[in-house]
Amino acid sequence: MSTLSVDHLLGIKYLQPQDIALIFQTADQFKEVINRPIKKVPSLRDITVANIFFENSTRTKLSFELAQKRLSADVISFSAAQSSVKKGETLLDTVNNILAMKVDMVVMRHSYAGAAHFLAKHVNARIINAGDGAHEHPTQGLLDSYSIREKLGEVGGKKVVIVGDILHSRVALSNIFALKMLGAEVKVCGPSSLIPKFIESLGVTVETDLRKALEWCDVANMLRVQNERMDFSYFPNSREYAMRYGINKELLESLSKEIVIMHPGPINRGVEITSEVADSGQSIILNQVENGVAIRMAVIYLLAEKIR
Amino acid sequence: MSTLSVDHLLGIKYLQPQDIALIFQTADQFKEVINRPIKKVPSLRDITVANIFFENSTRTKLSFELAQKRLSADVISFSAAQSSVKKGETLLDTVNNILAMKVDMVVMRHSYAGAAHFLAKHVNARIINAGDGAHEHPTQGLLDSYSIREKLGEVGGKKVVIVGDILHSRVALSNIFALKMLGAEVKVCGPSSLIPKFIESLGVTVETDLRKALEWCDVANMLRVQNERMDFSYFPNSREYAMRYGINKELLESLSKEIVIMHPGPINRGVEITSEVADSGQSIILNQVENGVAIRMAVIYLLAEKIR
Amino acid sequence: MSTLSVDHLLGIKYLQPQDIALIFQTADQFKEVINRPIKKVPSLRDITVANIFFENSTRTKLSFELAQKRLSADVISFSAAQSSVKKGETLLDTVNNILAMKVDMVVMRHSYAGAAHFLAKHVNARIINAGDGAHEHPTQGLLDSYSIREKLGEVGGKKVVIVGDILHSRVALSNIFALKMLGAEVKVCGPSSLIPKFIESLGVTVETDLRKALEWCDVANMLRVQNERMDFSYFPNSREYAMRYGINKELLESLSKEIVIMHPGPINRGVEITSEVADSGQSIILNQVENGVAIRMAVIYLLAEKIR
Repeated sequence: MSTLSVDHLLGIKYLQPQDIALIFQTADQFKEVINRPIKKVPSLRDITVANIFFENSTRTKLSFELAQKRLSADVISFSAAQSSVKKGETLLDTVNNILAMKVDMVVMRHSYAGAAHFLAKHVNARIINAGDGAHEHPTQGLLDSYSIREKLGEVGGKKVVIVGDILHSRVALSNIFALKMLGAEVKVCGPSSLIPKFIESLGVTVETDLRKALEWCDVANMLRVQNERMDFSYFPNSREYAMRYGINKELLESLSKEIVIMHPGPINRGVEITSEVADSGQSIILNQVENGVAIRMAVIYLLAEKIR
Repeated sequence: MSTLSVDHLLGIKYLQPQDIALIFQTADQFKEVINRPIKKVPSLRDITVANIFFENSTRTKLSFELAQKRLSADVISFSAAQSSVKKGETLLDTVNNILAMKVDMVVMRHSYAGAAHFLAKHVNARIINAGDGAHEHPTQGLLDSYSIREKLGEVGGKKVVIVGDILHSRVALSNIFALKMLGAEVKVCGPSSLIPKFIESLGVTVETDLRKALEWCDVANMLRVQNERMDFSYFPNSREYAMRYGINKELLESLSKEIVIMHPGPINRGVEITSEVADSGQSIILNQVENGVAIRMAVIYLLAEKIR
Repeated sequence: MSTLSVDHLLGIKYLQPQDIALIFQTADQFKEVINRPIKKVPSLRDITVANIFFENSTRTKLSFELAQKRLSADVISFSAAQSSVKKGETLLDTVNNILAMKVDMVVMRHSYAGAAHFLAKHVNARIINAGDGAHEHPTQGLLDSYSIREKLGEVGGKKVVIVGDILHSRVALSNIFALKMLGAEVKVCGPSSLIPKFIESLGVTVETDLRKALEWCDVANMLRVQNERMDFSYFPNSREYAMRYGINKELLESLSKEIVIMHPGPINRGVEITSEVADSGQSIILNQVENGVAIRMAVIYLLAEKIR
């Protein structure tokens, strides 16, 4: 297979295993490109991509923009604060207007779960979901699995625990879909009030005790604490959270084997993980960031084939 | 004639009919370009354009930026919120500083009617007025007439009604100048408190009854309701406005002929026009957006000839 | 010598005189480039530069961006308001994340004196300090001396007075280092409460009387009044400041010789200098802005040599 089975990247849920394999192979090639002195390829010189961020995100937006520039695409970006959204324009009108300007692809982040699907149904452009509410963040799911494959050789058969606020996390959901599709065993770990009831129906096990979860796993993916969403009746403050669901050096070294530490960033140092853990040899956090550009180049490149 | 009679685009008022003809012919060519798979031309590779927006505008700014990128110009953009304006710098200082960096052309939106003229007098660069207060918005006037020409074959002899708050609208004024210059008949329609006294001196007729105006016209250009400027002693709310000056499907279908519906965007759906009207076959709203890029490419291209 | 003695531009303080000579010679060449019709060179096509501004600055950011574009570098920019900084991310995490995306050079403005040094120690990229608190703003120091050299033939032996709030000014400090290294005589002039005690240890003389300072000098560099930092127990308002430390036409013409007027911008017209002075033939303020692009091209170009 040399083409994706989908016309958009709305969620990992809609991909086939061979789609992920194709994305990873393509990312391998782009990863070589971005590690050369000349980091650019002329592949998408005739493609225009619009980055529309209705929620702020420094790193995801920069990562997409860099991926696009390295493919030589034309890029226009805007974030909600500068947009007509404030003037009461609907999502569809905003995007239709941008498309009328002959834009080929839209990367969108939106607070509403389902926003990317809605777009894909109604507009004539390739859509990449860069996060829709608490639903999916598929490029994050892909780059996380890609980083595990890079570190451990493969994803299949590995034991991965996702730690934190599972309930509100699109990162958790996209990770679960990707990991399961690639044959990993997945556990989620967090306070029971932050783990949704349906999670076990995804073939995921639940553990509320962090030490037990870590003893079980090969990889721990530590979700960011979203202070604005945190259940403060449960955790009066981030220090309490750190004590029950954070990893410090002592905990890490007390485990019976070396595990890999991941974090989607930005890190609350001292909360989900301490600085010693973040900067240790077991952490692949900066590899995740580097791989994010390669994965996004691959996704954009493969969806661009669907335009012509 | 193969060159504009002006060195800047400050307003439609200062153009000759043959200027508009030249802009339209040039836009025809660029419209072909942006509908090709390869949407870029290297024409302006050695030109630097600064977009300076002292008022927010998603769509106008994106449209100009895309036009510039498709001409391969170098682009720098900033909006007021990020600028030194907040530090008390004067308009002239801001622009002179940007020009000292060797910028060839300035696209400016400013709340002060006459700001673009002021610049053109004092700085050594081509100036494009992207909206100055309630005065003019010439590229909007051009793209609206261009869209009528595209839909109906020509502008001359057509009957166009402009509906809404004429008093505060630079879109209305630039449309009136362009339409009259091209030989259309123009009527304005709105509550009498929102129609300026001088309007009839421009050769325009006035009608306060929307149904009568629509029965008369070939094209209805529905202005956006600017809630921040609306006369709420006249219309207690937008629902009242919609009842007297909005178009819904029933009204549209009750007319004795098919008319063309235009809107400069962003639409307040359900206020100036309902969704059914906006998305109907009689609406050319998205064509206006598409043509906006072609018209702006044409204007920038033709003014760039004035640099060398 | 054809290469800089440093790997980063953290401050003028760390340069050798021959570094400044090399930067000036390189800027001479780039100044020719930006005054040609074709203002671009392909020199840095394979370099990615990130502009990270934790404090707002229209003109410095635009100047750097233009310099980078004219060198054909890939550019990504973000300012603090859009960044993860708000989410509590540390400076080091922010920059490490950006570097993991394979960025070669970082231009950073930060309110903390020493931020650029900290970065240079901890990350693998060329760092250009675009202002760190009240410490240094080296490209401003370089472009100011370059502008004096352009106007007066050389810097060595010239008498330069820096007027205003020396205490809080990174522009003053970088100017002093550059001017002294190039052999100029330097005086600072301002209210004694705004002149730091250590200033004389830099080989600089102090004068609180503006007229005396102006009679002495060849060049007056008028610092911007930072209203947010102004000592209002000393000067109840900017009018009082203007009376004691501002230059108007009468004062300028009453001097026994013609002096050169400089200002780093943005000018508070009527405070540090009146409009007549700013726009007079003795002012080289717009030349400073133009030279800013050439100097920044030179610095970026010379540091890029340190990457490979």
